[in-house]
Amino acid sequence: MAEFSMVRTIERTRQGEALGAAAIEALVDGFTRGDIPDYQTAAWLMAVLWRGLAPDDLTALTMAMARSGDTLDLSSLGRPVADKHSTGGVGDKTTLVVAPIVAACGVPVAKMSGRGLGHTGGTIDKLESIPGFDPELTVARFMDVLRTSGLVLAGQSADLAPADGKLYALRDVTGTVPSIPLIASSIMSKKLAIGADAILLDVKVGRGAFMRTLPEATKLAETMVRIGTGAGKQTVAVISDMDRPLGRAVGNALEVIEAIETLRGGGPDDLRTLALHEAALLLVMTGAAPDEAAGERMAREAIASGAAFAKFADVIAAQGGDRHALEDFSSLPHVAAVQTVTAPASGYIAAIDPLAIGQAAMHLGAGRERKGDTIDPAVGIVLRATVGEWVERGAPLFDIHARDAAHAAAVRADALAGYRFSETPVAVPPLIKTTITAPT
Amino acid sequence: MAEFSMVRTIERTRQGEALGAAAIEALVDGFTRGDIPDYQTAAWLMAVLWRGLAPDDLTALTMAMARSGDTLDLSSLGRPVADKHSTGGVGDKTTLVVAPIVAACGVPVAKMSGRGLGHTGGTIDKLESIPGFDPELTVARFMDVLRTSGLVLAGQSADLAPADGKLYALRDVTGTVPSIPLIASSIMSKKLAIGADAILLDVKVGRGAFMRTLPEATKLAETMVRIGTGAGKQTVAVISDMDRPLGRAVGNALEVIEAIETLRGGGPDDLRTLALHEAALLLVMTGAAPDEAAGERMAREAIASGAAFAKFADVIAAQGGDRHALEDFSSLPHVAAVQTVTAPASGYIAAIDPLAIGQAAMHLGAGRERKGDTIDPAVGIVLRATVGEWVERGAPLFDIHARDAAHAAAVRADALAGYRFSETPVAVPPLIKTTITAPT
Repeated sequence: MAEFSMVRTIERTRQGEALGAAAIEALVDGFTRGDIPDYQTAAWLMAVLWRGLAPDDLTALTMAMARSGDTLDLSSLGRPVADKHSTGGVGDKTTLVVAPIVAACGVPVAKMSGRGLGHTGGTIDKLESIPGFDPELTVARFMDVLRTSGLVLAGQSADLAPADGKLYALRDVTGTVPSIPLIASSIMSKKLAIGADAILLDVKVGRGAFMRTLPEATKLAETMVRIGTGAGKQTVAVISDMDRPLGRAVGNALEVIEAIETLRGGGPDDLRTLALHEAALLLVMTGAAPDEAAGERMAREAIASGAAFAKFADVIAAQGGDRHALEDFSSLPHVAAVQTVTAPASGYIAAIDPLAIGQAAMHLGAGRERKGDTIDPAVGIVLRATVGEWVERGAPLFDIHARDAAHAAAVRADALAGYRFSETPVAVPPLIKTTITAPT
Repeated sequence: MAEFSMVRTIERTRQGEALGAAAIEALVDGFTRGDIPDYQTAAWLMAVLWRGLAPDDLTALTMAMARSGDTLDLSSLGRPVADKHSTGGVGDKTTLVVAPIVAACGVPVAKMSGRGLGHTGGTIDKLESIPGFDPELTVARFMDVLRTSGLVLAGQSADLAPADGKLYALRDVTGTVPSIPLIASSIMSKKLAIGADAILLDVKVGRGAFMRTLPEATKLAETMVRIGTGAGKQTVAVISDMDRPLGRAVGNALEVIEAIETLRGGGPDDLRTLALHEAALLLVMTGAAPDEAAGERMAREAIASGAAFAKFADVIAAQGGDRHALEDFSSLPHVAAVQTVTAPASGYIAAIDPLAIGQAAMHLGAGRERKGDTIDPAVGIVLRATVGEWVERGAPLFDIHARDAAHAAAVRADALAGYRFSETPVAVPPLIKTTITAPT
């Protein structure tokens, strides 16, 4: 190719022209090595916000970021490997349910998760509430746990897609975060570096999610499916509701308990429904089930037989966690006293703002306001009634698990302000908005 | 105001929101001092390309850049002072004609000019072809010449609007040059730092200009007039044709000669027409003439009386130039032999591409391909016939003033390729497209 010029590349992006894979690779390599100065990359990022990127360029960008550091070779497992990602929501412990179900059905699940920031929690934060659990694995140990347990639940390695980390840090200080192609590329670069064959994406939409509207969420989902497919991976996206918290528990140990209950056949309806749908999709994508209905039957059977919970217990133990705590929840971190907030009036619950609940949980200490904040695994909020249900005045609405009464009092009003009531029955918005199974 | 946040400023610009003067000033100050990193400024510049800037923000930006270094205080002259700027074209020696005319009519003219780059020449390069002439003046000397001669023709001081210089250097490497607000702000910041009361802007439009189309040129002109007016200066813009070279001479000493001929009552029609129009406007703007017709009469009289040429000779002498060379052109740099190119066929000249002529002159050594290239003051091209005129096959079309026959031969075909001929008479496009006298 002609000699790479970053100025020319910025100009072409600014004019909405396609760049080609060679230029994209030169850009990612140059930026990662530090040969391209940050000011040029920053101008390019803003041009991408403005004009977007051609689909092939976006796939090339994502693949180049994926190749910028360690990549895993999962082919030695000899079977298609599954991965699952959520864009983040309030009470979203779906991975803790889906991954063991799929693994119990014989499909290896290789999962690296991030930590939470703001009102959304992170899978790793939740798992770390289990005494002894260690998410920080070397590549060798990651492969070892995956091979032995058929499932691994690790923290994000810093050596995975370092170009993404460096690019994100620059986006964070240059007002270039909210670009759907860049968000999609950031997520997918890490998935491609892990290298699973089947990638299930859960794109949350609503007040508690990064994507507030269905068109935005659909665009992000379609963009990620296009990237994954373009990179030769089976990629499917589920767009699911985040206009209310998922399930009833919000907080780290509280969510682990709810996930375990669901793995054992209980748990809230919405969490079970979403987890079964996602597990079924992954079973179809990896060839373990002929169709979604069969996949869902396999998933239900994995729960009913106890195989799914056993798989979860196995992987927790394999990563140093206290298996006993999964059966005796008193061994998990918990608060001394729970404050129950009751309904101020009788009525149907018309809405529970996930942002209000997520921020209340964060203020209790379940989440981080700033990167590096420490979190309290015990605290959080548990809904006692949810959207669409009738509550009598004075009946329990939600429980506050706080370290003391002062912390509970501090968030009580804000959490309660997230509720809306109706005198007449309300329609509950569908949990699963749509499933995108092929690039558009 | 609230504490300044550059990230928030980038985000607001990206969303097309107004910033307010305080944020703009904090941005310019922070960037000039180096407190704001280049990567943030680069992202902001691309956001400005994308969204533009609110008119008040743009005026604030320009004034903040003007205040970033030395500013002149012209009030001690006790009279309105005039300034004139051209966006650059091929054969554009208008300043050399307008400034002495206006000064001869009693209006002081304070002019700082840049050097040429690419196919367009710079006023200072042209003046430096006069033996002894020194454009590099201290502020004290600048004021001294202005006070004594009523006219000063200086090079651009590096201490003038240093924020503009720093910003332009960043734009140059981040693909953020072609933004009309940023171009307008860059030009006007230097005008405001000089501080003249009346600013006449000549915005060139056409193949030989930076602005190729009338809508673009109009937008730039309107933007500059709005900035100047917003900053409390009388500001008028003339949009003039650059689809052909202006006048007949292209090259430094050659253009000085043509300017002198025009100051003495001769010279080409188009140059005289444009110079008289611009001089008349400046005379009206500074209150020296009641209206444009009266201004034009004064300008014609300044030429006819010899006062305009005398003023030019005075300022050249005041700045060290050889006054004798202005009367005896053999004392100006000149080539040993001139090559005349003749018409390949009979016909009307339908077009002379200013880019072809400007680039041919540059390749002869009259201009710079890159910053810092040295130029040859003697060389250039002189048109012997111009657009709309009939030429017989074999009649002189243009003269090449080259340092040797090889250089002449090297540009002959390219210059000739800039001509288009017609068998039928052609309409000559109007020289002056429009004059913008008030902000829109």
